[in-house]
Amino acid sequence: MGVTITTPDRSRLVDLRRTFHEYPEPGWCEFWTTARIVDELETIGVDEIHVGPDAMDTSERLGVPDEAELEDWFERARDRYDGDSDVFDKIEGGNTGAVAVLERGEGPTVGLRVDIDALPITEADGADHDPTETGFRSENEGFMHACGHDAHITFGLGTLEAVKDSDFSGTFKVFFQPSEELLGGGKAMAAGPHIDDVEYMIGTHIGLGHSTGEVVAGGRGMLALNRMEVAFEGESSHAGLAPNAGRNAVQAFVTAAENVYAIPRHKEGATRVNVGRLHSTNPANIVADEVSAELEVRGDTTELMEYMRDRVERTLESAAEMHDCSVDYSLTGEAIRHDSDEVMVERVVDLASKIDEVTAATRWAEFGGSEDVTYLMKEASDSGGYATLIVIGTDHPGDHHTPTFDVDEESLGVGVSVLSETALSLFDDPVG
Amino acid sequence: MGVTITTPDRSRLVDLRRTFHEYPEPGWCEFWTTARIVDELETIGVDEIHVGPDAMDTSERLGVPDEAELEDWFERARDRYDGDSDVFDKIEGGNTGAVAVLERGEGPTVGLRVDIDALPITEADGADHDPTETGFRSENEGFMHACGHDAHITFGLGTLEAVKDSDFSGTFKVFFQPSEELLGGGKAMAAGPHIDDVEYMIGTHIGLGHSTGEVVAGGRGMLALNRMEVAFEGESSHAGLAPNAGRNAVQAFVTAAENVYAIPRHKEGATRVNVGRLHSTNPANIVADEVSAELEVRGDTTELMEYMRDRVERTLESAAEMHDCSVDYSLTGEAIRHDSDEVMVERVVDLASKIDEVTAATRWAEFGGSEDVTYLMKEASDSGGYATLIVIGTDHPGDHHTPTFDVDEESLGVGVSVLSETALSLFDDPVG
Amino acid sequence: MGVTITTPDRSRLVDLRRTFHEYPEPGWCEFWTTARIVDELETIGVDEIHVGPDAMDTSERLGVPDEAELEDWFERARDRYDGDSDVFDKIEGGNTGAVAVLERGEGPTVGLRVDIDALPITEADGADHDPTETGFRSENEGFMHACGHDAHITFGLGTLEAVKDSDFSGTFKVFFQPSEELLGGGKAMAAGPHIDDVEYMIGTHIGLGHSTGEVVAGGRGMLALNRMEVAFEGESSHAGLAPNAGRNAVQAFVTAAENVYAIPRHKEGATRVNVGRLHSTNPANIVADEVSAELEVRGDTTELMEYMRDRVERTLESAAEMHDCSVDYSLTGEAIRHDSDEVMVERVVDLASKIDEVTAATRWAEFGGSEDVTYLMKEASDSGGYATLIVIGTDHPGDHHTPTFDVDEESLGVGVSVLSETALSLFDDPVG
Amino acid sequence: MGVTITTPDRSRLVDLRRTFHEYPEPGWCEFWTTARIVDELETIGVDEIHVGPDAMDTSERLGVPDEAELEDWFERARDRYDGDSDVFDKIEGGNTGAVAVLERGEGPTVGLRVDIDALPITEADGADHDPTETGFRSENEGFMHACGHDAHITFGLGTLEAVKDSDFSGTFKVFFQPSEELLGGGKAMAAGPHIDDVEYMIGTHIGLGHSTGEVVAGGRGMLALNRMEVAFEGESSHAGLAPNAGRNAVQAFVTAAENVYAIPRHKEGATRVNVGRLHSTNPANIVADEVSAELEVRGDTTELMEYMRDRVERTLESAAEMHDCSVDYSLTGEAIRHDSDEVMVERVVDLASKIDEVTAATRWAEFGGSEDVTYLMKEASDSGGYATLIVIGTDHPGDHHTPTFDVDEESLGVGVSVLSETALSLFDDPVG
Repeated sequence: MGVTITTPDRSRLVDLRRTFHEYPEPGWCEFWTTARIVDELETIGVDEIHVGPDAMDTSERLGVPDEAELEDWFERARDRYDGDSDVFDKIEGGNTGAVAVLERGEGPTVGLRVDIDALPITEADGADHDPTETGFRSENEGFMHACGHDAHITFGLGTLEAVKDSDFSGTFKVFFQPSEELLGGGKAMAAGPHIDDVEYMIGTHIGLGHSTGEVVAGGRGMLALNRMEVAFEGESSHAGLAPNAGRNAVQAFVTAAENVYAIPRHKEGATRVNVGRLHSTNPANIVADEVSAELEVRGDTTELMEYMRDRVERTLESAAEMHDCSVDYSLTGEAIRHDSDEVMVERVVDLASKIDEVTAATRWAEFGGSEDVTYLMKEASDSGGYATLIVIGTDHPGDHHTPTFDVDEESLGVGVSVLSETALSLFDDPVG
Repeated sequence: MGVTITTPDRSRLVDLRRTFHEYPEPGWCEFWTTARIVDELETIGVDEIHVGPDAMDTSERLGVPDEAELEDWFERARDRYDGDSDVFDKIEGGNTGAVAVLERGEGPTVGLRVDIDALPITEADGADHDPTETGFRSENEGFMHACGHDAHITFGLGTLEAVKDSDFSGTFKVFFQPSEELLGGGKAMAAGPHIDDVEYMIGTHIGLGHSTGEVVAGGRGMLALNRMEVAFEGESSHAGLAPNAGRNAVQAFVTAAENVYAIPRHKEGATRVNVGRLHSTNPANIVADEVSAELEVRGDTTELMEYMRDRVERTLESAAEMHDCSVDYSLTGEAIRHDSDEVMVERVVDLASKIDEVTAATRWAEFGGSEDVTYLMKEASDSGGYATLIVIGTDHPGDHHTPTFDVDEESLGVGVSVLSETALSLFDDPVG
Repeated sequence: MGVTITTPDRSRLVDLRRTFHEYPEPGWCEFWTTARIVDELETIGVDEIHVGPDAMDTSERLGVPDEAELEDWFERARDRYDGDSDVFDKIEGGNTGAVAVLERGEGPTVGLRVDIDALPITEADGADHDPTETGFRSENEGFMHACGHDAHITFGLGTLEAVKDSDFSGTFKVFFQPSEELLGGGKAMAAGPHIDDVEYMIGTHIGLGHSTGEVVAGGRGMLALNRMEVAFEGESSHAGLAPNAGRNAVQAFVTAAENVYAIPRHKEGATRVNVGRLHSTNPANIVADEVSAELEVRGDTTELMEYMRDRVERTLESAAEMHDCSVDYSLTGEAIRHDSDEVMVERVVDLASKIDEVTAATRWAEFGGSEDVTYLMKEASDSGGYATLIVIGTDHPGDHHTPTFDVDEESLGVGVSVLSETALSLFDDPVG
Repeated sequence: MGVTITTPDRSRLVDLRRTFHEYPEPGWCEFWTTARIVDELETIGVDEIHVGPDAMDTSERLGVPDEAELEDWFERARDRYDGDSDVFDKIEGGNTGAVAVLERGEGPTVGLRVDIDALPITEADGADHDPTETGFRSENEGFMHACGHDAHITFGLGTLEAVKDSDFSGTFKVFFQPSEELLGGGKAMAAGPHIDDVEYMIGTHIGLGHSTGEVVAGGRGMLALNRMEVAFEGESSHAGLAPNAGRNAVQAFVTAAENVYAIPRHKEGATRVNVGRLHSTNPANIVADEVSAELEVRGDTTELMEYMRDRVERTLESAAEMHDCSVDYSLTGEAIRHDSDEVMVERVVDLASKIDEVTAATRWAEFGGSEDVTYLMKEASDSGGYATLIVIGTDHPGDHHTPTFDVDEESLGVGVSVLSETALSLFDDPVG
């Protein structure tokens, strides 16, 4: 390697991680988080900072909460924010997220994507939970960085800091993506103005059952996903006096639900379908005029997900028609399938195995869930480039998405080393 | 009463009944039966005989069997028929039935409707079953006059014979209606050319649990009915290799069937729905490309039946659409609701209670099933006239529609007396 | 009539009605209402007052809210209550309601039942709504006496006051019944200790589309009803990673719902079934481990309601079993069918037509809904006695169960007159 | 190779194939076929012949036709058979099939399985269909060797003839298996007395899209399958008069069918489910008392098939229970998953590529359907041995299971060469 990297020291990374851990915000509500990221980017001194509408195509955002909820989080964030920031004007209304750019002349463009949103989980408050013990437990009761996105933000900032003064030729972009948990932000960022020139796209995730010091290069098997909010609307009538006079939204819904589970298996591979969040307020003495639910489908490939989505839509519409109701469904989250490229995987394994803190560098993490970094990875592929996921191991006491999840802060440095080495190596010696 | 009636003697009526009992034919296949009726009408010497297409609107026939079955019964009938008859040319292709007319100048028109078809039931062959013992058991194995339509034909012919030489002024018409059991003929006869001038319409039924000598005037409660043949069509595929490539007619059918049973109850009164005769030949390793079934709905009123029919049709179409199949449904039988008129009921009770053989004359038989004489009754009502059903009691050893059903031949004379007295009284002293 | 009745004057009745109108409480939460009723009973000077557990069999109460809700209403009521009352100790925990008794020696026992609960409806606040204009609009925002139970309480108290000083021989009992709207209190009161000796049972309702001055004697056609709370419980799993590992409560629920609507119609008469209040919180990426809903069935007779209930229970259990889930269902409301007795109807019509304020006394109100006064009426019948409903007309601007419902206070006096005349006449001249 | 093989000459193989082609018999009805096979085995002079009950565990036969159908085929076969044979006594009642054994002292036991049943397909009769043109078209109209089992029988007999006089040490067994098409015979043969000592099991199939001269060693991907006959039984009632009095088998069936398609996808791999052959004779005016259907499930592995089967059984039973019906289901066909062993595949490729007539020897045919040779292969594996499938290419004008299917008779010699070389090589030089 022809470059020297100065990884930020441990305490700097720990500070950053704890700062963000303490104030978790859900998807499209990362107002304070975005403002703080921008502050740090200014401190680091990157060449460009694009915020909110300048960072993505906001019309492609999925699953944006309603006005009241956005407003509530926005006000809370502004109250908490120390000092002034014109960032707030840009991000109001759920336009969170940012892209940071280091420009170093001719050369390839390398992208790193980190996600920044938190989960609606109440953080553990036992003495054996380090954030509680040490004093940086979530201040937003009921919300928590329970999937390590606080560490991911730290990876993004730390890697910029590490790379900034290196002698490389090309462009380095870090995508601070909102709303990954609900698969709402990947599509919007991939549709934004900063992805087109990216030749190498790196996604990263901490933990996933791998210990501190382990690095896994490459991810595959993530299912493509489509999630929708569904609302059947009928007409009420008295269930005793005039059952025939209603247009029964419960009957429309249950017919749809029965049948979406029965969509034929597909010969090309795995498919999934599930229905949740049922809601209807009409008491039993009233024929229901509304039922809402959430519905998701998945597929081994984007095409299989689309097969399921098309069948679901046909089923919803026919079920509504059958019971003389109407149905609305709107996309609230989506991810495509895109596996890592073998050449990138090999490069990362090579590099990682030379890094001291890395105790084991292996290939291919198998995912069963869904991730919307795939949109950004696919953009790189479609432009003739390459992409990979890199899993940075960390000892985590509780599972992801549970109240006792925590990261081993020793792994923060490992992540920054691996990610910055990978980025710089791609400038120095492009793969593919 | 100003007229004298000569009821045909017992042995004549018994002969007629046995003649028709011996050769039962199902709906729209009453070829031999129609030819024999016409022979008898010629012997009696009525003024007009209208056969088949001249007796009804054949385009309104419902549930006509397929060509092969019609042809089979037609050939059998022609073979059996003794001598020549140009009736066969008229009725070929399922145009059975006849209307006989006695014209006696000015005066009201009175109609009597009798049905002539038999059932697909194998007649009992034990020694205790009189037709077997006496030697006039069904020659058409598998078919039987198990609902007394042989007696009804006898009522029709006997009443014409009884009335023929009476001194009355007006017109008397007897409608020998095909296909009552499947509710296929009533609509066609009511749409024919002989109903418009009918002011008084009389329907009749033997038995129904009433003993010989009992007469019940008036019938009500018959449900309106709509029966359809339903066929879903999809596309086959191999259930193991490509389940998604098919368009599954079984799934379309079961979704429809689930939902037709769940059509909301109606505040206005009783409704019914049922599915039968399922058929699909594709083995389980093939996604089915066809499923057929029979479906019926009923209602306390014609409107309620139509409510159910409309909901069923919507359900069938939506279920087909849901599974990307098509569906065909065609009407195979229909009856409307039409109760007897009180004035007619009173008239019949009055008359019947004066007849010697009548031991009890009561009012209102409650029907739960369906009958298509209602079409003819409604025509009379719509023209400002009146209609009634008359039940002629008979001791019947087995229930209607069972292999041991039989009629007490003593009741044949009772029926002819009551019906001819009723008809003549209406000429003499119109009600309403 | 051998007695003289002193109907309380108009302003007294208006005061009472407004007092109760102003503080509406839902079923089993009528804490302040019960305490105030007891105060009035003490003022009137009845012979016995039985409160809460002394007034009914509390183990038969249906649809009692959870502890937290009871506690909340209880505290609010106690805070509002002016002065002390040991009634509160008795009624804490949802044991509301009371029975008042006038003992006048030998003679029949006559019962009058009035219901005392309110509805979860926000009262209109426009100037054209008299309670708002005049200043006694609901103080419990979101709750309202929108079905006239404030007038019913007034009928109960006013009738006691009117009858108290009359010279009659026998016993008069007024049942102040909680939780009629949800059909939760009738069964418990009918199972209590004060019903056994009641020979004549009178139920009453204001309004129902009849104008001030009109009285309708007798009610019939109320459907028997059974309402249950249903909860399916399964087991969660990740819908993408392990759909087979869950036990899907949504699938169990929708199979049950499809099939309860498809319970066969019954030959004996009308039946009803409906499902409402769907609730399940699991998001779509989780196989749901719980779904709850409310379900009601009705029938033309108690037997028909029970036919439906039994079929529903079988369906729920089989659907749970099919999807390896469990299901709990608990009765939250019930009413039986019990029509008024003809002899009582005639008596009431006779009496009412002689009362000056009564402009029209007619027979038989047809109900399509359900009422649990039927339990008390049936008790009287079962003891060889008689029962009737009496509808007291009132001009009501809005419909029952709507925010603009109101009663014409002129009708309060009419009601008290009719009810007290009826009661006294039964002592004087027993029917049956 | 240390042995010399004398492959039977072309005309002998062609004669055999045409003999069997001309008289196709369906599963468990291969009476004439079995008798003719035994004749040939006697001509060849094998050491042991085990027929019917001596060849398998007849209690494990699946999908055996009913008595009448068996009897019909049996009589037809006996009439056609030239001369006497005591084989018929053994095989009467559907106990067809045979095992032939060559004993040559110490050494391994090698098994070859060939299937002998035909399909219910009407053979093409155009001039361009060689069996028609040449004169050996099916004599059993409506049945046809449309999947090459006539060639498989020829492979079995030809290989015995080729191997018989070779100098090898060990035991060679050929399993002439009945009823493969419906997956009825494999389980019974694998449960029989001749499989336990088999160390090497060879299955074979002709065609499958491969041309004459091509040989494919190894098969994998066949889905495990379970097929059942399902019959719901309820109780009839009149759909108009007493819908509630029936126990509706149609409702039970459609609820089951809806839900079997909705059995959750499994994380471990592909599953399948399908319903076919619906049958119910009750007309729509009768609540159905019986519905029958055929149902199959498949899985990527035997465990996945069993997961589906268990869920199907639970669903059937719960649906019956829900509608107060009963349900019977009986296994009519089954196959497990068992892929070929790599060491065997390599051996076959090696050998085949040295055979002159073989133009291409490749590895791994991917199957999507199901085959019950897997039972016999698994037995060998379970005993510590090895198994493989060998596909013998043939130019076939029509697809398998179509009326124009035919085999290129040149491939008969190729098959016998490959199979006999493989068998002998395993005696000489055991693999594994």
